Amino acid sequence: MAGGSVSPTPLLKDELDIVIPTIRNLDFLEMWRPFFQPYHLIIVQDGDPSKTIKVPEGFDYELYNRNDINRILGPKASCISFKDSACRCFGYMVSKKKYIYTIDDDCFVAKDPTGKDINALEQHIKNLLSPSTPFFFNTLYDPYRNGADFVRGYPFSLREGAPTAVSHGLWLNIPDYDAPTQLVKPLERNTRYVDAVLTIPKGTLFPMCGMNLAFNRELIGPAMYFGLMGDGQPIGRYDDMWAGWCTKVICDHLGLGVKTGLPYIYHSKASNPFVNLKKEYKGIFWQEECIPFFQNASLPKDCTSVQKCYLELAKQVKEKLGKVDDYFVKLADAMVTWIEAWDELNSSPSAAIPNGNAK
Amino acid sequence: MAGGSVSPTPLLKDELDIVIPTIRNLDFLEMWRPFFQPYHLIIVQDGDPSKTIKVPEGFDYELYNRNDINRILGPKASCISFKDSACRCFGYMVSKKKYIYTIDDDCFVAKDPTGKDINALEQHIKNLLSPSTPFFFNTLYDPYRNGADFVRGYPFSLREGAPTAVSHGLWLNIPDYDAPTQLVKPLERNTRYVDAVLTIPKGTLFPMCGMNLAFNRELIGPAMYFGLMGDGQPIGRYDDMWAGWCTKVICDHLGLGVKTGLPYIYHSKASNPFVNLKKEYKGIFWQEECIPFFQNASLPKDCTSVQKCYLELAKQVKEKLGKVDDYFVKLADAMVTWIEAWDELNSSPSAAIPNGNAK
Repeated sequence: MAGGSVSPTPLLKDELDIVIPTIRNLDFLEMWRPFFQPYHLIIVQDGDPSKTIKVPEGFDYELYNRNDINRILGPKASCISFKDSACRCFGYMVSKKKYIYTIDDDCFVAKDPTGKDINALEQHIKNLLSPSTPFFFNTLYDPYRNGADFVRGYPFSLREGAPTAVSHGLWLNIPDYDAPTQLVKPLERNTRYVDAVLTIPKGTLFPMCGMNLAFNRELIGPAMYFGLMGDGQPIGRYDDMWAGWCTKVICDHLGLGVKTGLPYIYHSKASNPFVNLKKEYKGIFWQEECIPFFQNASLPKDCTSVQKCYLELAKQVKEKLGKVDDYFVKLADAMVTWIEAWDELNSSPSAAIPNGNAK
Repeated sequence: MAGGSVSPTPLLKDELDIVIPTIRNLDFLEMWRPFFQPYHLIIVQDGDPSKTIKVPEGFDYELYNRNDINRILGPKASCISFKDSACRCFGYMVSKKKYIYTIDDDCFVAKDPTGKDINALEQHIKNLLSPSTPFFFNTLYDPYRNGADFVRGYPFSLREGAPTAVSHGLWLNIPDYDAPTQLVKPLERNTRYVDAVLTIPKGTLFPMCGMNLAFNRELIGPAMYFGLMGDGQPIGRYDDMWAGWCTKVICDHLGLGVKTGLPYIYHSKASNPFVNLKKEYKGIFWQEECIPFFQNASLPKDCTSVQKCYLELAKQVKEKLGKVDDYFVKLADAMVTWIEAWDELNSSPSAAIPNGNAK
């Protein structure tokens, strides 16, 4: 578990897909070639399906555009957003692997304080393969890391930890700020490399960003729905937040762990704050209702699978957030559709061969 | 709030006491002179009161030995431990300042990754003077720090934060491990400098170490009781843990924040793991009962002061942990005595002038 070095055999080579939502040529992959080339990519093309997305030579990938999504899901395609990076969750659904890593196409390889390129994927895999500690806080951060352990006063009964479902990575350079903060601090850059991975405690929500995110699809996949955003919707840029709230509540219920911290990627490009403000402004109001809703959400004991938890959450969303705005009624319905589509594509190995444009 | 530089006028010079429990000459203060000399020290001498503790020239201090404690508190002195660093909490009680910093005499000045001496006290003061964020997790750590902020998805209604009651600092070199971990990993040293301060979320307990700790005495002082440890008690090395559990439950109830992370001190000397095992072994069992007790403890709404909260906790300790061992009945009584003594010494400015051996 020593940090940093590129393993001769890439970890989980045949058990992990990299999901990339995009509207442009994937030149950014050149920089990631040493780390990503051994893995299979699932590219979800957003926007105009007639446009050709160029992928650098030598990468193994399948690509889905809107026509593919409509063909594969039929009427259930309504749950997949269009003209918003929320479309990426279609890639989670069609993957047949145990692990997913998803990254934005404006995220480059970051350097650690010694100047070495950070293999973000390798760190995510380490995070996912080692347990989490959601039930008690360890002051020296991840106790499973080399050179660290549980500190005095940490209950021995909790030192086995919990299975890790999610690994949330961070960003150097452009921080993931909302539009108002972008507007107020246009020049702020994140230059602080915090050398830590930590578990977000049980009962605590966090703002999950989809830019640099990995998860165990078997443990939590069906909760990673990125909602209804973008084209035809009153809101954008809350896709990953929505997934994060739902995921955390379900992880807490099922005794699974969520980690945040390392690895960093280098976020190259700030999105336009004026455009973002338009996408976000309803979300800025609604999150004041959504977060208390999720903080107080409780799932009954018979919710023993992610699907059951998610459908129960959808019901509660409709009942409680439906009063805030009709959008949440529509979203709750889409949550149900998402689970139906997930189960259809994932029910048996032969049930569905999505048949994107594989290379 | 820029990090690191020594302010021309030391922060909170007349509002902070440094509390040091010791059994030996305080040569370690030489190293801290640039940072500590402007402040007043409260030295709590443990063990043989006839022994003279030498304090380096130029420090402003008062010193209390066991005879002083007995004289000042009379029969209530029974709540102050003897032959254990838990005695330090007497210093919290006799202080007249708003802030306390407490440090062990085997803690030296650490260096940051650039090789610069870390002014631990200055960082603690910054932690205490800026708000905490206990209600929602910020993935870029302390949002009030220069170069950081709240990330996208952080509710705006929570961005004022909560008043900070406790700042828990960490340790380079010898990590704060329990005896079993010390025995298993005698050579492990903490060399990882994690450049972060974060709030421990509401509802989450943590192992609070008393080695490098600061707090706001007005906000949380009466909860900082370090329990019955050492001489005549069946347990040691759980003094700070006990205080940490009680403090965190009360901070959560009163809406106060607890931070952990920076600053680091350099912990020079590992205590003897065999001796520690003897002190700890009952605690290792008992913490398995204590932690669920504190995780589930709930304080009624009319507990609006730290004292009321603490007395209520004492009652619950007696009722529930008293069944685990008679020790907790004795401890619960001592908790009540502690509050009585605290109130006696702190009720009015002229109520008590402790009269230690001031210099």
